[in-house]
Order: sequence, then C-alpha cells, then structure tokens
Amino acid sequence: MLYRRVLVTMSTKPWGGRFRDEADSGAEQYTASIGFDRRLYRDDIRGSVAHCRMLVRQGIITAHEGDLIEQGLTDVLREIEGGEFSFSPALEDIHMAIEHRLIEKIGPVGGKVHTGRSRNDQVALDVRMFLRREIFDVLNGTAALQRALLEQARRNLHVVMPSYTHLQHAQPILFSHYLMAYFEMLRRDAERLMECRRRVNVMPLGAGAGAGSGFPVDREGVARELGFPRITRNSLDAVSDRDFVCEFCFASAMVMMHLSRLAHDFILWSTEEFGFIELPDPFCTGSSMMPQKKNADVLELVRGRTGRVYGHLVGQLTVLKGLPMTYNRDLQEDKEALFDTVDVVKATVWIMAALVPKIVILEERARRAAGGFSTATDLADYLVERGIPFREAHEIVGRIVRSCLDEGITLMDMPTQRLAQFSEQLGMDAKRALEVDNSLKRRDIPGGTAPSRVQEAITEAERYLEEHLQALRDAGASDECSQRI
Amino acid sequence: MLYRRVLVTMSTKPWGGRFRDEADSGAEQYTASIGFDRRLYRDDIRGSVAHCRMLVRQGIITAHEGDLIEQGLTDVLREIEGGEFSFSPALEDIHMAIEHRLIEKIGPVGGKVHTGRSRNDQVALDVRMFLRREIFDVLNGTAALQRALLEQARRNLHVVMPSYTHLQHAQPILFSHYLMAYFEMLRRDAERLMECRRRVNVMPLGAGAGAGSGFPVDREGVARELGFPRITRNSLDAVSDRDFVCEFCFASAMVMMHLSRLAHDFILWSTEEFGFIELPDPFCTGSSMMPQKKNADVLELVRGRTGRVYGHLVGQLTVLKGLPMTYNRDLQEDKEALFDTVDVVKATVWIMAALVPKIVILEERARRAAGGFSTATDLADYLVERGIPFREAHEIVGRIVRSCLDEGITLMDMPTQRLAQFSEQLGMDAKRALEVDNSLKRRDIPGGTAPSRVQEAITEAERYLEEHLQALRDAGASDECSQRI
Amino acid sequence: MLYRRVLVTMSTKPWGGRFRDEADSGAEQYTASIGFDRRLYRDDIRGSVAHCRMLVRQGIITAHEGDLIEQGLTDVLREIEGGEFSFSPALEDIHMAIEHRLIEKIGPVGGKVHTGRSRNDQVALDVRMFLRREIFDVLNGTAALQRALLEQARRNLHVVMPSYTHLQHAQPILFSHYLMAYFEMLRRDAERLMECRRRVNVMPLGAGAGAGSGFPVDREGVARELGFPRITRNSLDAVSDRDFVCEFCFASAMVMMHLSRLAHDFILWSTEEFGFIELPDPFCTGSSMMPQKKNADVLELVRGRTGRVYGHLVGQLTVLKGLPMTYNRDLQEDKEALFDTVDVVKATVWIMAALVPKIVILEERARRAAGGFSTATDLADYLVERGIPFREAHEIVGRIVRSCLDEGITLMDMPTQRLAQFSEQLGMDAKRALEVDNSLKRRDIPGGTAPSRVQEAITEAERYLEEHLQALRDAGASDECSQRI
Amino acid sequence: MLYRRVLVTMSTKPWGGRFRDEADSGAEQYTASIGFDRRLYRDDIRGSVAHCRMLVRQGIITAHEGDLIEQGLTDVLREIEGGEFSFSPALEDIHMAIEHRLIEKIGPVGGKVHTGRSRNDQVALDVRMFLRREIFDVLNGTAALQRALLEQARRNLHVVMPSYTHLQHAQPILFSHYLMAYFEMLRRDAERLMECRRRVNVMPLGAGAGAGSGFPVDREGVARELGFPRITRNSLDAVSDRDFVCEFCFASAMVMMHLSRLAHDFILWSTEEFGFIELPDPFCTGSSMMPQKKNADVLELVRGRTGRVYGHLVGQLTVLKGLPMTYNRDLQEDKEALFDTVDVVKATVWIMAALVPKIVILEERARRAAGGFSTATDLADYLVERGIPFREAHEIVGRIVRSCLDEGITLMDMPTQRLAQFSEQLGMDAKRALEVDNSLKRRDIPGGTAPSRVQEAITEAERYLEEHLQALRDAGASDECSQRI
Repeated sequence: MLYRRVLVTMSTKPWGGRFRDEADSGAEQYTASIGFDRRLYRDDIRGSVAHCRMLVRQGIITAHEGDLIEQGLTDVLREIEGGEFSFSPALEDIHMAIEHRLIEKIGPVGGKVHTGRSRNDQVALDVRMFLRREIFDVLNGTAALQRALLEQARRNLHVVMPSYTHLQHAQPILFSHYLMAYFEMLRRDAERLMECRRRVNVMPLGAGAGAGSGFPVDREGVARELGFPRITRNSLDAVSDRDFVCEFCFASAMVMMHLSRLAHDFILWSTEEFGFIELPDPFCTGSSMMPQKKNADVLELVRGRTGRVYGHLVGQLTVLKGLPMTYNRDLQEDKEALFDTVDVVKATVWIMAALVPKIVILEERARRAAGGFSTATDLADYLVERGIPFREAHEIVGRIVRSCLDEGITLMDMPTQRLAQFSEQLGMDAKRALEVDNSLKRRDIPGGTAPSRVQEAITEAERYLEEHLQALRDAGASDECSQRI
Repeated sequence: MLYRRVLVTMSTKPWGGRFRDEADSGAEQYTASIGFDRRLYRDDIRGSVAHCRMLVRQGIITAHEGDLIEQGLTDVLREIEGGEFSFSPALEDIHMAIEHRLIEKIGPVGGKVHTGRSRNDQVALDVRMFLRREIFDVLNGTAALQRALLEQARRNLHVVMPSYTHLQHAQPILFSHYLMAYFEMLRRDAERLMECRRRVNVMPLGAGAGAGSGFPVDREGVARELGFPRITRNSLDAVSDRDFVCEFCFASAMVMMHLSRLAHDFILWSTEEFGFIELPDPFCTGSSMMPQKKNADVLELVRGRTGRVYGHLVGQLTVLKGLPMTYNRDLQEDKEALFDTVDVVKATVWIMAALVPKIVILEERARRAAGGFSTATDLADYLVERGIPFREAHEIVGRIVRSCLDEGITLMDMPTQRLAQFSEQLGMDAKRALEVDNSLKRRDIPGGTAPSRVQEAITEAERYLEEHLQALRDAGASDECSQRI
Repeated sequence: MLYRRVLVTMSTKPWGGRFRDEADSGAEQYTASIGFDRRLYRDDIRGSVAHCRMLVRQGIITAHEGDLIEQGLTDVLREIEGGEFSFSPALEDIHMAIEHRLIEKIGPVGGKVHTGRSRNDQVALDVRMFLRREIFDVLNGTAALQRALLEQARRNLHVVMPSYTHLQHAQPILFSHYLMAYFEMLRRDAERLMECRRRVNVMPLGAGAGAGSGFPVDREGVARELGFPRITRNSLDAVSDRDFVCEFCFASAMVMMHLSRLAHDFILWSTEEFGFIELPDPFCTGSSMMPQKKNADVLELVRGRTGRVYGHLVGQLTVLKGLPMTYNRDLQEDKEALFDTVDVVKATVWIMAALVPKIVILEERARRAAGGFSTATDLADYLVERGIPFREAHEIVGRIVRSCLDEGITLMDMPTQRLAQFSEQLGMDAKRALEVDNSLKRRDIPGGTAPSRVQEAITEAERYLEEHLQALRDAGASDECSQRI
Repeated sequence: MLYRRVLVTMSTKPWGGRFRDEADSGAEQYTASIGFDRRLYRDDIRGSVAHCRMLVRQGIITAHEGDLIEQGLTDVLREIEGGEFSFSPALEDIHMAIEHRLIEKIGPVGGKVHTGRSRNDQVALDVRMFLRREIFDVLNGTAALQRALLEQARRNLHVVMPSYTHLQHAQPILFSHYLMAYFEMLRRDAERLMECRRRVNVMPLGAGAGAGSGFPVDREGVARELGFPRITRNSLDAVSDRDFVCEFCFASAMVMMHLSRLAHDFILWSTEEFGFIELPDPFCTGSSMMPQKKNADVLELVRGRTGRVYGHLVGQLTVLKGLPMTYNRDLQEDKEALFDTVDVVKATVWIMAALVPKIVILEERARRAAGGFSTATDLADYLVERGIPFREAHEIVGRIVRSCLDEGITLMDMPTQRLAQFSEQLGMDAKRALEVDNSLKRRDIPGGTAPSRVQEAITEAERYLEEHLQALRDAGASDECSQRI
C-alpha cells in the first residue's frame, strides 16, 4: 500500500524529496547527460545485474526480488537494443533512465537495485567497463597497423632512400628501416595502453557515494562476476578518480602524435617534388575547382585530428585541476571527451592500417635521392679508419663538399686525384666509401640500417607481434565473463 | 546532349575525372564532414545566391541561368528546413550535398553556381557568416548576464561581506562591489568578442582555391549583398586563415575562465560552512543515494566546461602549428570545435544570466563574517594617520592580532587600554577604526568599495550597458541584409 | 624612539608581527620570486616614485618625507643598475627587497612609501608597466618583419611559383603574393597586440589589497604621472585580473603559429627536392657528424618554440581556472611565463626580420614547378567561358589530366587535336589558357595574384606600414612620461 | 703536420668546413643551448668515457688514445665542477663545449672521441641518463609524501569529519580515510613514473645521426657500462624519439593535478569558515598590507604550478606534432621544459612531504561538521533493511530532511514519534542509525571508512611502501655503475 502511494507521488527525479521547486528546464538541459551517456547502457545494465546477483547472495534482497530485477533489466536491454526505448532528458542520465523504466516495468521492487550503491560508484564502474573494452579495440587497431608496416617492410627490403635530419638528406637507409621506426613507436604506444588498461581494469562498486556502501556488499564477488582482477582500495578515491581518463587521452595523444608524423612524411613524399611514394586513390580526394588535384585528405585529417585529441587531454586535466574532493558534477565532462578520443584514435589506427599496405614505393626516385651527398659521412669515416681524428676528417670532407657545391657536381663526380688534394689519406679506394650500398652495409650494428640488421629487426618484430596479439586475445577472453549478464 | 551524357557518368564526387579507383568506404567515412557541417546549410545557400546574382551582374552567367539557380537553391533550402533532405556521407560535405541536389533539380545548369569559386573560399565564407551571427548571440548572452549582475548589485547595495585574498578574510566589502568585479570581466570579454567579430566579418569569396578567382567576379558587390564591411586582402591568406576560429575560442575560453571563478565562489559560498548565499532549487540537483543533498550541479558544470573550451582552443592551435600553406584538409577540424565552443559558451552565459538573479543572499551571515579581523588594516591606517610609518604600523597591529588569537578574542574584544600598550598612538577612538561601516566608508576612491563609489559604478555600468546593447542592435541590423536571399 | 625599537626587531618579512614560527627555508625557496621578478625593478621604482609624489600632493606624507623617499629610491635604482644590489631570497620579492633597502638607507620613514598601497596592486602596476613597453617592442619587431616581407615582395615581383593546397601544386602565383599573405597575418597580429595593449594600459594602483585604498589617494594623478590613459574601475577586479597576461600569451601564440607556418614552408622549399630558395648560411648550422649538412636551425627553432608559447598560454589559463577571488599566490605564476613569452616572441620576430631579406629565390626552379598541371583550372575556366557548366568542365579536364598521367606527359604536351576529342569546345586557342603567365593575369581581382593586383597590394601595404609605425611612435611617446622618475 | 694545420684553421663550429659565411650573432644566440644544457655536463662526460672505452675495446682507437681522452675528460669534469670552465655561447651546446676544451687540452686526438657518434644520439643518451636519475629523485619525493600521509593517517585514526561531494556534506568519514585517498593517487603516480622510467632507461648510443653508426660499435657493452638494461631497437627512432619527455611531463602533470586537489582542500579547510585544520606558520606568509593575514602561500603555489607543468606537457606535444623524421632542431626545445618540470615536481612533492606532517587537525570542529545531515543516508539504509525499496526510502528521508530544514532543526533534533509519521517503519531505534559512529561502522567493506577497514588499509600501505622503497633502492643501485667514470 505504502509503496504504491509513494511511487505515485515520486517525481521523475531520484532525489525529489528534499526539494521544493521544480527543476528549471534550461538547467535540466544544461545538466542532462543522457544525450551522450546512453552509450554506456550495456555496461550499466551488466553492472546492475552483477550488483543485483550479489545483493541476493549477500541476503540483502531476496532471490525472488533478484529474479524480478534481473528479468526486468534484461527486458530494458532488449528495448534499448530494439530501438524502442525513449530517452528523455528529464531523466538526467542513462542510470536513472534505466532504473526508472525498470520500476515502470516491475514496480517498486525495481527501486531495490540501487541498494548499497550510488551513481558515483555506478558511473565509475560503467566508464571503466566501457574503456577497458575500447582500449582492447584500440590495441587491435595498433596491432593491425604494426602488421601493415611489417608487411610493407618485408616486401620492400631492397628499397633505398635517404634518411633526413632537418629535412635535409642525411644518410642512405632502407625504406624498411624507416617503416620499422614507426613499428617501435607503436610498440611503446601499445605498452602505454596496456599499462593504462591495467589501471582502468579495477572495480569501484561498493564505494557508494564516497564513504563506502553501508551494506555488507561483496565487492570481490562483483569484480569476479564482471571480470575485474582487482577492486579499488579507497572509496573516496574510487568516486573522484579520473586518472584513467586522462591517461587514456594521453596515450591516445601519443598515438596521434606518432601518426601525425607518419602522415606528414607520407604527404611530403607524395608531393610532385619528392615523389617517393604514390598514395592509393581511394584514400585521396580531388578538388572541387582544380581538376588535376589528388589530395591526401585522409592523411591530412590524421594529422589534423591530433589537435583534437591533444585538446581532449588538456580539457580533462583542466577539469581536474584543483577540484575539491570527492565527486563533483564537473566530472561529467569526462564522457564526451573520452568517447570522442576513443572514436578518433580507433578510426585513425584502422584507417592507417588500411592505407599503409596500399602505398606504392617509387623506388627509383627514392634510390636516386639517396645518392648525392648522403654518403659524405662515410668518406669521413674512411679517413678516420686511416687514423685521422674524426673532428678533422669531418672538416676535410666539409671542404670537399663545399668545392663540389661551388662547381655544381656531386661527390661521386669528383676525380680521385682531386680528392687526394684535400688529404693524402684519401686513396684510390676512397670513392668506394661513397657508394650507397657500401654505406648501408657499414651500419651493421643492432638497430642499424644494414640490410641484415633490418631483416633481423623484422623477424624480431614479427615474433613480438605474435606474442602481443596472443596477450590481447587472453586479455579479451578474461573480459568475456562480463559479457554474460 | 553533351551535358546529359556527362551528368550521367559523373560520379557523386565533384572531382571524379582524374581518379581511377573508387573511394574507400572507410576513407569516405573518415573524411566526411556532412554529419556536422550541415549546420552551415543556410549560410551556404545564402552565400551561393549572392555569388550567383553577382555572376549574372558580371555577365558570367545569364539572367535566366541565375533565376534557375536561385529558384533551385530556394527549393533546396525549403527541403532542408522541411526535413525532406537526405544527407548522404558519400556527398562529403554540405556544399557538395546542396550542389548535387541543385543539379538533380534543375539539371546541368546547376553546375554553373560553382563558377569562379572553390570550396576553399566557399567554406571560409560559410564559417564567417555563421560565426559573426553566433558571436552576436554570445554577446547578447554576456549582456544579459551583465544585466543580471547589475540588478543584484543594485538590489543588495546594503549587504556587507568580507573580501578574500588567499581564501582568508581580507577586508569588508559590499557584496555589490564583488558582483561589479564580474561586470568588469564581462566588459572585457565583450570587448574581445567585438574585436574578434570585426576580424570575422570580412568577405573571403573570390579567393578561389587560393590564387584568386579566374573570373572577373565583383567581390565588393558580394560583400555588400551579404552585409560584410570589408573583403579579404590576399587570396592565399583568405583560404588558409583560421585566426578567427582560434580567436573566438580564446575569447570564449576567457569568458569560461571568468565564469569558472564566479561559479566556484558561489559553490563555496553556498556550503554549509560559508553559508553566504542560497542557490535556487531549480538550478540544483540531489543525490541518488544521499537524501539530504542539494548540489550546485549547474555551477559545477559551468566550471567543468571551462576545460572543454580550453581544449578546443588548444586543438585549434595545434592544427595550425606548422601547417603548410595554403589550404589543407586539416582545416576541416575547425568546425566541430567551433560549433561546440559556440554551444557551450552560449548556453553557459545564458544559464548564468538565469541563475544569478535567483541567488538569495543570507546577509546576516555575510555581515557577521565581515567582522573578526577584517578591519585590522584600518587600525594600521589609523596609526599611519598619526605619523607612524606604514611598515611599523603593520608590525604593531600584527602583534595585536597575535595577542588576540592567543587569547581567542577578536580585535573588537580587546579593551582600548590594552591596545594602547602596543602603541601610545592608539587612542580612545582607535576602535572606531575597527567598525565595518567605517572601514567601508574609508575606501572612498574611484573603484573602491565605499557605498557611494559602488553606487556610482553601478550607474556608470548601466549607462555603458545601454550603449553596448545599442551597438549590438546596430551590428545586428547591418547583418540583416544577409538575411534576405 | 619607539620607531627605532620596532625597526630593530622587525624581521625581514614585511608581515612578521602576526606570526609565531619562522619561515621554513624550503618554503622560503619555494615561494620566493625574487629570482625572476627582479626584472621588474625599474617599473617598481618608477611606480613607487609616482605613488610617493601623489602621497605628498594629497598631504598623506610631508614634502620632506617625499623627498627622502624619492631620493632613496633613486639611490636604490642606481645600486641595482650598478650591480651593487644583493638580491636575497629571504626578501621574497622585488617589492620587498627594494623597500627593505630603502629603509636601510633612509630609516623608518622609508616604511611610508607603502602607505595606502598593497603588494597586490603594486605588482599589478609593475607588470602592466613592463608589459605595455614590451608589447611595444614586439610590435616594432613585427613591423620590421613586415617591412622585410614587403621588400622581398617588391624585389621579386617577377618570380612565379606554384601555390599549394594539400602540398600539391594548385595554381601559379607570384612569390610576392605568397609573401604578402604573411604580411596580412602579421597585420592581424599587430591589431591583436594593439588591442591587448589597450587593456594592459590601465592603472590599477589604489586598489590596495582588493577593497580599495583606505587613504584619499589620487588615482587619476598617478595614472597621468605614469602615462596611463585610464584607471581600473573595480578594486577587486584590479588585483585578481590577469586577463592581459593570457591575452598577450594568446596574441603571441598566434604570432608564433603564423611564423611556424612560414618557417615550415621555408624549410620545405630549401630541401634538395623543392629547391625554391636558398637559406643564408649565417642562419643555418651544420652537423657534428655529417659534413655535407646545412640545416635550417633557426627556422626549426622558430617552429619548435611555438610549442613553448602555446604551453605558456595553457599554463596561464590553467592557473586562473576556478581560482577563488581575489588575489591568491597562484597568480605569482604569471611572471615567468610572461617573461619567457616576451623573450621568445621578441627574439623570434626580430630573427625572422633579419633572415627574410637574406633568402635567395631560385627563380628558375620555382617557375619550372609552376608549369605542369597547375593551370588545369584555367582550361576548365576556358570551357566555362564557352558555356559549359563549371561542374562538367571540371569533369572533362579531369579526364584529360588522367590521360596525361597515364601517358606520362603534361597538359602542354597534349596536341590540340587530342584535346578536342575530350570536348568539342576545346578549340585551337585552348592551350593558351594553359600558359602560366596567362593564368596569372586572369586572377585580376582584388586580392588575386595578377601582377598588377599584387603591385597594388604592396603599395597599400607600404602605406599602411608607414601609418602603423607612426601610431607606434605616438604610443611610445605617450609612455615617455613614465620614463622620468 | 696536417692535423695541426687543420686544427688551427678549424672554426669553433664542429661543422665549419662546408660553410662559406660566418654565423650571424643573433642566430647564434637564438640557437645556443649551452645556457641550459650545461646541466647535462656530467652525463655527457660519463657517456663519452663509456663510448671511448668501448672504442678502445673494439680496436677503433688505441688504448693510448683512449687513456688520453679519458684523462682529458676527467680534467674537463674537474674544471666544470670547480667553476673554472667558461661556457661560451659560440660553442652552441654542452657537447661541443666539452669536446672543444678536450681538444684544447690533449690536442687533435681529442677529436677521436666523436668517432662513430653524432650529437643526435649523444644528446639522446645524455637526456636519458639525466632523466632516469631525476625520476628516481621524484619517486623518492612521492614516497616521502606517502609516508607523511601514512603517519598523519595513523596518528589521527580517531578523527571524524564529513566527506564532501559537490562541496556539500555527504557522509561522515575518518580524516585518515581521506588522507589514504591521496596515498592511492600517489601510488598510481609512482606506477606511472616507474613505467615511464623503464622507457627512459634504454641506451640510444650507436644510432649515430640516424642511420646507425658506421663503426663496429658495441652498443650492448656501452649499455652495460652505463647501467642500461636495454638498447634502442631502431636507429631512426632512437634519434627522433622524445616520447619519454612527453611521458614524464604527463606523469608529472598527474602528480601536480593530485596535489592541486590536496592543496585546494587544505586551503579550504584552513579558512575561517571551515576551520578543520591549522597550517604550520613556516609554510605560510602574511600580507604586506593586512596585518591579520596568514596565507597558505605554499599550497597556493602548489596549485598554481600545476598550470606550469600542464603547459610544458602541451609544449612538448606541440613540438612533436607533425614533425618530419628524424631529428630536427625543434627537438632542442625538450630540455628547458623537461628541466623545469623536474624542478617543479621535485620541489613540490618534497615541500608537501615537509608540510603534511605539520598540519594540525582541529578535531572538534571537524567532528561537529560531520553531524548535521551527513547520516541521512544511514536513515534510508535503515528503512531498506526493513524492506522498503531504496528508491522510496530515499524519497521518505528526503521529506524528513525538507521538514527539518523548514523548521531549522537537524535530523537528530526531530523526535522519534515525528519520524514515525513519515514511515511506519521508522521505529524507536531509528535515531541510532543517525549517530556518526554507527554510520562509520556500517561502512565495513574493503575500501570503506569503517575504522577497522581504514586501519587495515594503513597496514597494507605501510607494507607496500616498504617494498616500493626497496624497489627504488634496487633501481638506484643498478644505476650506480654509471656513477663510475
């Protein structure tokens, strides 16, 4: 009887009792998060089911009540997935929208699902469930991109190009060696993401509004049910912690930063002037005005979207700066930035994984560019091997270069005899040092660009990638238990 | 004949001719902007109509063609506003979607609308038309908030509170004086927005893809038609310039920063502990767990959303850093950040304008807090007037304060005779200097908190606001001509 | 007598009286600002002299006291400039260091200089005096750079190069037209800096600790003495406002952003592959290992230092977010960021002003690059003029380009008869449209790259620069009065 | 002979040979880094010694040459540490300054130290050696702060205070529970720093200018000598990677963010209005104007300096965005930001470690504040235990709160009989649920605020800290080998 009466007068707000005046509709709109946090519906329902099962196990609600709630939640899930659910801004957020519908469906007993829980720990749970899955997806994308780089590297082991420092020709390298540099960057990115995921993958429920739940909840049990290896250690921290959002934004910013460099290099190399690579038509667009244009739009957006992810990182750090403990509504600002970061970084790694294999290397032009003055260092090294201190050898070769430039010739063009005028140590074989392939072979140290070393690096990378993918599959499997409601 | 044939084979892409392979659907999705730039549809159509009329005037297309195009565009506008328009991602962006539909409706002649124009200058025009109107709206909101502050200031001229430095009581002030500090901040914000708007309000069409249109377009005429006072001076700059987006993001960041401070102060003052103000129920929410809570959610979100706008600013600056001239697809990243900044800052100034008038000052508690040690400076000033150098007067009063703290009394509690022991200059009338109202009256200089000065400041502010609103109305009117198609 | 005694026991801290325990030396170090704010010494002394003269005029101190103080301050200034002043961290900041020395020199009467003033308004004054002068210097630098661009533009009016969009050849332009795009950017920068300077150039003294001075100070008089056109309107705002620091950081960030683009373009153009320009040796460095290298270090640092200025902007915005009113020690963080921003942006504009005139254009290579497909749009325009809708003309020319690419020829290489097969409108004179000089001449609209238009733009710019420099000189002169102590 | 001659004509630049014109002095100043990178001198010399020993072992230079160089470097080190070394900007950077002095001392043979090395890999080595040691120091500081928190937590286990959400009273907690929340944040910070350190602690030498050294250097040997567990895997990546700088800036930003929250809470709690804690005098300062002030300057600067570190993070990310591979001079911008971040975060954690133990809790005021309405949730929980669904229990208690507020009483003041009118389930024992100590005891779950749980958490934390410090000591020891030259 009582129940019914209360239900009838209950406002749509879960906290109406204490208030006298109705919410302002502008304020409602300003504060509503349901427009974006609805994306968490599945995690929210799964979390609620696990919470509810635990409440039964602990004797806090009856088995019958538990069944009703679980059944009701399953129905609500079906409604949402079937597109029959109406999301009203008046219901503030996804948690309240689901609970409200649950009570509509199964009556006041639905109100028992929130026993021993607060939205503060509930939303922390939802976001963590969401993010650990998404990081998994991002990692699959970075691995796909690594595979693409590896394949191109293996396929093009014979392609030579100049390395650049200061955008000036430095020394000849293998194109594969260049690609493998990005493999390494992504390896660090994956490491960071994995580490971040470990800190995401911690179960906060039971923290209540901050002081800890007032009911004898079984936090470890809920964690097991949802596939979390650990629970949070301090309830106040649990509800005010958004480190993991910042950290994911940072790890994503690093991914984007790396890809902005790759994109920029590819854009440069596909210019008329460089002409080292040809970009695949399907990843380019034309101009509405200039019929000849083929623009690297995808790569330019990869570069441009870096700014967006940097911005989200700054936004999150700003929100948290000097924020009073513990939960404050400011923390709601975590979600849109997080969702967009997830979307951007996922789309970006996957589109790059699709684009990289389709790049065509114009190897002749690349090799030609590797000639010129790129092997000047090798000539200095030649002198060093003949006992001249490096600093002087460098000086001597610098003068030879200066002479060549003045005459408009390359090092190879200079007759051996003239070379000898710069140093008596420059013998008949000096010009062999200037040959591109000899230069490559000299760099025969771990991490160097000598062909054998690059091949080794590729082999090591393939082995690593295999193991890494296995680790990802394992991590994915351990999450699986959270897939059953 | 020819026309028809070409049309049939034309891909949906406006640049298909040069390409061999179809766009990748992932790439299409990654690059499509129609999901957000559709918001520019009205500005795009208005701009096209003005461009088309000019083409007729200049004899570049015939009057009949112009009529067909203008009629077609009006139809497209009606379709969009009627919700009948289907936005397909395959059409890339709003410009192409509209042109494509135009050609569907009126045939190949529709293709003439793009004569002498590129998307590069077209999108610059659209964004500028959009933003100059939106800045106008933001300015209306800041003016509304200024009015709200003024009204509270006038209404509460008698309310005294402590000013704070370092969150410690500093000196007694009028609550109105506090409110007027925010009036000043918003005055600077409005100045910045107006100046930004002047740089937005420049007409870029005619820049073409960057080198300038190849047709004898009448740029000044288009500017007049669309209500722009000036045209851009350099075509390359016109298509690569997004200064105005950064600048608007910055001006918005400053507005948000100011309001984050106001919000934070109000949150603090509405705590149990401070208790200076009561926040209006309709702008607060409760807790899903704790029945006693009344939380300042709106204010917390105002504070939190500051991070978001900072983030957008950083994002824009990052996009532009080191970007090769002139247009690059990276620039597409301007729109979502800009739109969100516009939405957030507008919503924020308006919600604050609605909230501020409903704040209730608990004046007794505020006045009580202004007692205590807030007038210690006045005692030092009293000594200074009796010839003691300020630095020593400060030292003397510091010792008196120390004594009071040790004994757990306030300055007012200390007997006049005991005061005299600290300095013979502390006479019978010394304690009058400690009275709050005397302290206020002493601050009788321009910008000070003496009641008469605050009143003057309010009067000046009212006059300013009147003029400012008139200036806004005038600016709005001059835009009006762009409202006619 | 009393005076003497107090002085003796006075700690070095200006606020010792109330405290019981000595400062912790770590805390002293953590909070001391004298390591950097000593840079404000001259402004601090000038401000104190003006304040002191006013105290005399208002009868707050005697003429004799005023003379003593002014003389003492002059002596302190001489000591500092002579390098005889010892800056001790125990004295916290430059204000206290100077006042302390003053009292050492002239006795307790020196303590009267702080009458009716607080460090809160004093530091605001100092920073504003510093910054208005520095902005002036930055503006001189941007003007010098504008002049350098103008001179190169005038000198190289005949040099043709391709414009780029998406780093792909777009259309032929004049190199001068490119340079003038940067002139425009700097014009906006200068505008922003001038506007910022107007908001800096406001006199805050009299705000005291926040509530307003308790003495009948003549704020307008001090403003006149120090060359400020206006005084702050609200005392609380005056001590907590750092808008002008943020705004200067933003305006500087924009300058750096523009120059990062210019630097990046120049770096690119001086590559082996582009080879449009040669950078002056004195602005480049070599490699410690590779003898052939000539690296554009200065330009790279211009690009890199953009990050630093962006960082300072973010730092300032972060400090202010949610900061309680009014003054908090957090605000001390304004100075190092501001000083470094000033130093970086000044050094950057000046070094660019020195570098730009020494760039050598390799005009043949630039002109050659402008050939190729850059005039494809002109061919489409040719068709448009013969009645074909632009959208179809674009399609037709796109196909021609595709054919050329397949055959490895340029548009100019394709025989006129073959062109006609793509459209019957392509007549005998079609290929004239493809000529670079014709393409340039077509862009004969305001802001376009037609030679006559660029010449006009240069002339207008020269006139503007003259006026702008005059305005700067005038502004400088009006500051002059603050140069006399 | 030749050697001598070359030496004589060698410019101070290590790359003079190729150049024709002298460096511009402005450019020299703009590019010089010796003003700040001198800080790396010890790491630079240690790295050179290890490199030199390896060159000997590999037979690239003779043992005699090696001895000369090593002795010379040791002398240079002594000169620098003795303050006898003159750092000239003309020598660009610390690497060149040391090598130049070495050659002055031991003759041309000194030029052999740079054999098989470039500044590109040398500077990467130096910065990594510097940073791994500094991270170690930061970690010692965070551990010291954790210990300080732990000690305060153990000492004050009996102190009760309200927890806050939205700055409103939420539920009673132990003050120790609050402190332990920060312990957890710092635990995550330490994790991140350790992970970052692993990525710093990788040996880059041998990468040369990017393609790998042309000499058969023993990279693993150098790594062992310098105490690095790993070598970099790709030479291009090795010279262009600054991930570790960004990552350290991020990890530091998180530390600062956490401490900004702690600082802000403490500032708030030490206000007149809250009055929960008293801050130690030695960490506060007074006002130059207001004699009564005691300001939390140290805490405010902790909060303010957060902005600075955020700024450095943004700066670094900006520098790297879109940067062409591999090394560019932009990367020089890593150092000042890194040094300042190191200095700020180290000083901040140590000053907080010194301040926290000296905070005095005013426990009566804190406990009093925990009364009031903080236990309303417990009353709702009481109802839930009697079978009322939580959602309705919340509604009922909300109405009781409303009634109390209307009458100006607390929950405890309401007679039991009146409570019963709100729900027949509210029995005679209902008010026991409102008692603060009962509320605390109820939160008896892992991570909750029940006294026994907090005690457990402290014990676990002590154990963790012991192990963590041991791990730090071990890491430190393994670095030791790099301490010997």
